[in-house]
Amino acid sequence: MKIVIIGAVAAGTSAAAKARRNDDQAKIIIFEKDMDISYSGCGLPYYIGNKVKDREEIVPRDSDYFKKKYNVDIFTRHEVLNIDAIGKKLTVKNLITNEIFLEEFDKLVIATGASAVVPNIAGIDRPNVFYLRNVQSADKIKNFINKNNPSKVVIVGSGFIGLEMTENLKELGIDVTIVELATQVMPAMDSDMALYVEKYLKEKDIKLVLGDSVAAIEGEISSTKVILSSGNKIETDFIICAVGIKPNIKLAKNAGIEIGETGAIKVNKKMLTSVEDIYACGDCSESYSCLTEKNIYRPLGSTANKTGRIVGEALNGGNLEFRGILGTGIFKVFDKAIAYTGLSEKEALKEGYEIVVCHNIKIDKATYYGGQEMIIKGVADKNTGRLLGIQIVGNSGVDKRIDVFVTAITFGAKVQDLFHLDLAYAPPFSTAKDPVMYTGMILENEIIKLSPTKMEY
Amino acid sequence: MKIVIIGAVAAGTSAAAKARRNDDQAKIIIFEKDMDISYSGCGLPYYIGNKVKDREEIVPRDSDYFKKKYNVDIFTRHEVLNIDAIGKKLTVKNLITNEIFLEEFDKLVIATGASAVVPNIAGIDRPNVFYLRNVQSADKIKNFINKNNPSKVVIVGSGFIGLEMTENLKELGIDVTIVELATQVMPAMDSDMALYVEKYLKEKDIKLVLGDSVAAIEGEISSTKVILSSGNKIETDFIICAVGIKPNIKLAKNAGIEIGETGAIKVNKKMLTSVEDIYACGDCSESYSCLTEKNIYRPLGSTANKTGRIVGEALNGGNLEFRGILGTGIFKVFDKAIAYTGLSEKEALKEGYEIVVCHNIKIDKATYYGGQEMIIKGVADKNTGRLLGIQIVGNSGVDKRIDVFVTAITFGAKVQDLFHLDLAYAPPFSTAKDPVMYTGMILENEIIKLSPTKMEY
Repeated sequence: MKIVIIGAVAAGTSAAAKARRNDDQAKIIIFEKDMDISYSGCGLPYYIGNKVKDREEIVPRDSDYFKKKYNVDIFTRHEVLNIDAIGKKLTVKNLITNEIFLEEFDKLVIATGASAVVPNIAGIDRPNVFYLRNVQSADKIKNFINKNNPSKVVIVGSGFIGLEMTENLKELGIDVTIVELATQVMPAMDSDMALYVEKYLKEKDIKLVLGDSVAAIEGEISSTKVILSSGNKIETDFIICAVGIKPNIKLAKNAGIEIGETGAIKVNKKMLTSVEDIYACGDCSESYSCLTEKNIYRPLGSTANKTGRIVGEALNGGNLEFRGILGTGIFKVFDKAIAYTGLSEKEALKEGYEIVVCHNIKIDKATYYGGQEMIIKGVADKNTGRLLGIQIVGNSGVDKRIDVFVTAITFGAKVQDLFHLDLAYAPPFSTAKDPVMYTGMILENEIIKLSPTKMEY
Repeated sequence: MKIVIIGAVAAGTSAAAKARRNDDQAKIIIFEKDMDISYSGCGLPYYIGNKVKDREEIVPRDSDYFKKKYNVDIFTRHEVLNIDAIGKKLTVKNLITNEIFLEEFDKLVIATGASAVVPNIAGIDRPNVFYLRNVQSADKIKNFINKNNPSKVVIVGSGFIGLEMTENLKELGIDVTIVELATQVMPAMDSDMALYVEKYLKEKDIKLVLGDSVAAIEGEISSTKVILSSGNKIETDFIICAVGIKPNIKLAKNAGIEIGETGAIKVNKKMLTSVEDIYACGDCSESYSCLTEKNIYRPLGSTANKTGRIVGEALNGGNLEFRGILGTGIFKVFDKAIAYTGLSEKEALKEGYEIVVCHNIKIDKATYYGGQEMIIKGVADKNTGRLLGIQIVGNSGVDKRIDVFVTAITFGAKVQDLFHLDLAYAPPFSTAKDPVMYTGMILENEIIKLSPTKMEY
């Protein structure tokens, strides 16, 4: 069997590694348009912020590694121009020699990833406007900073990439202004939780321009001005555009492969596309919510790894199926950790749930061991008691609580189950009643207040 | 209704607070033999180690607080001498005035806690032999250290209290020798995991004497010698005896209340004893394993809080039932965190399970963000795939992983479920495939190797 994979970052290489573990005879080839493979996209903000010293720490593996360890041939700087789904062949261009050739496959894996969204505004193509998507785009930002020693940046977008870049650029001594179209930072979260983040960013001397957007970028490169829709202007040395990413679906679409309503490649639970023997995984493919069962597009490194492995299994006829995601996310901004999973309040209402909500403020470990307050917002189904979603802002132990909630929600936990968890307690790690337990207890009380007879134990 | 509670530490005060929230009319009284109430027993090693500066941080609440906040009357230095279960009255002694009086109750809560086990050896009653159980016992150790400036200690027992004391005394500059009867430290864990702890303790210059015990304590106080069963002798300035704790059941036993096979007070799921209207909670009562459904005795602060709240609910006819425990524990020793939940390998075998086992060594977060190796031992049921128990030794993120495993095991997770968890990933917190997921994947492979047809997805 000959397996050809398009894309050699998280999903593509995971698929290759798993396929090889299951079948030591298959021929496995990967074509990668870029020069870097299997890199940590999530580490790029820290690479720019010099917290990661060596480029090799972000790109620890090369083609030789995959050849030796997995007997997988990775061809970098090779762009696939066309998929012939019926004839089962690819048109491939060697970007170094410009040679174009045909490559046949028995099974194909599309792991073409995603690209940064480029807003359609005047001046967006200027050389001091940057995106953060792959290692080369990070190199460009690093080189610009090293060469020009800029003192101010405008970051457009306040999702997790925008905020991770905020921390890293601010800590390089660069003055940061965030421009966000929504009237809150982190539009994925509820506005009441975003408020805590906004307050903290202001304490950190970050300028926030909310409810406004970039209309144009003007002026000489040395005196760039960002013109906002409101008419306000911001002088800046450079711009990081972090307004979202979109799946790379052109190849798939041209080949007649079905694209889902989310705009990403539609797949079944084995990551098979609408065309036999053609799979898709990672940031170019759709996920689905294990809460609502609806298709969603939430491109993340952890999901790319997961769906890649599922493809690797499916290529050999395995039974592993994708169980969907909760839409979990976490990021760090300065000393704060911000995390969320499941449905926010606004999402739950949009989905038609009758809900109860709590804002639980508790210390993350014993006060005498340095405990600090964390805020947990919980959303639960008023009628079934089922926990639907969590958002947390805190200092330490946020990652722990979100992962406990992820696990509980995955197994269908009701709010009244959380009190019973036999969580690990010692003063350096927690409190005798963990904030997770309190969240369940408070939500339970909210439900009892509204419908005292409904609570089942 | 008149509720009388014996004991005002974690369980007794939790019961009182919950009972008051449910019923603002009841008369609620607590008798406490000691002078301190509602203290953090788990913080005592850090109080001795001067990491907690003020005694008030360990004992943050007094009787006035409970009177004002909950309208609960707490009488400290009042010892209950007898329970008349049929006549529903207590004989109480005021330890300050020596007055003895009768107190009637409608409902009684026994929260008498536990005491340190005192080994039956010559010299054990010397003034430089200490136990750590309540704040006064911690004060004694602190006072001894401040007055005598000792340079060496023998700690008898290597459970979590022994090891927490090891850290705290060593960091005060005291040379520590641990004497442990078992041939490993932390007898609750499997020996292969204890090895990692032993290696680390040796790196920290802690002397370990394993498979030996104290036969006698001899010599002048100023030149005390610990005589071991092996015949070896250890010179020491003082001794901390941490060989276990036993439930305080004398009052209950004398009142004809049933004592369980574990030696603690037998209770049902509402924490009701064998006698109507008499409840027990906290360290004096039995728990049960939600894995094996067998009664076990695992006295811990977190369980005391939990069972206290359940009693508080039951006192008013509530439906809340204790769902048992997994036997979760965590402790810190220097820079290591050590945690366990569910069944160890030896316990699982004793319970008759056919098991698979893995030792999963993974970094706790991205290498370029300071990730360090953690070792996770997993135990699963070979026939059902059910996860049975976890032990972890690591530096950071151990508390997170154990709590995720606790939650998964509580909901009956099979090893093949762990890969699918949508855990939170960003480089400062984790790896794209979390060590929890890898643990599931490795255990799954172990099961497939043994019985490939059995794995269900």
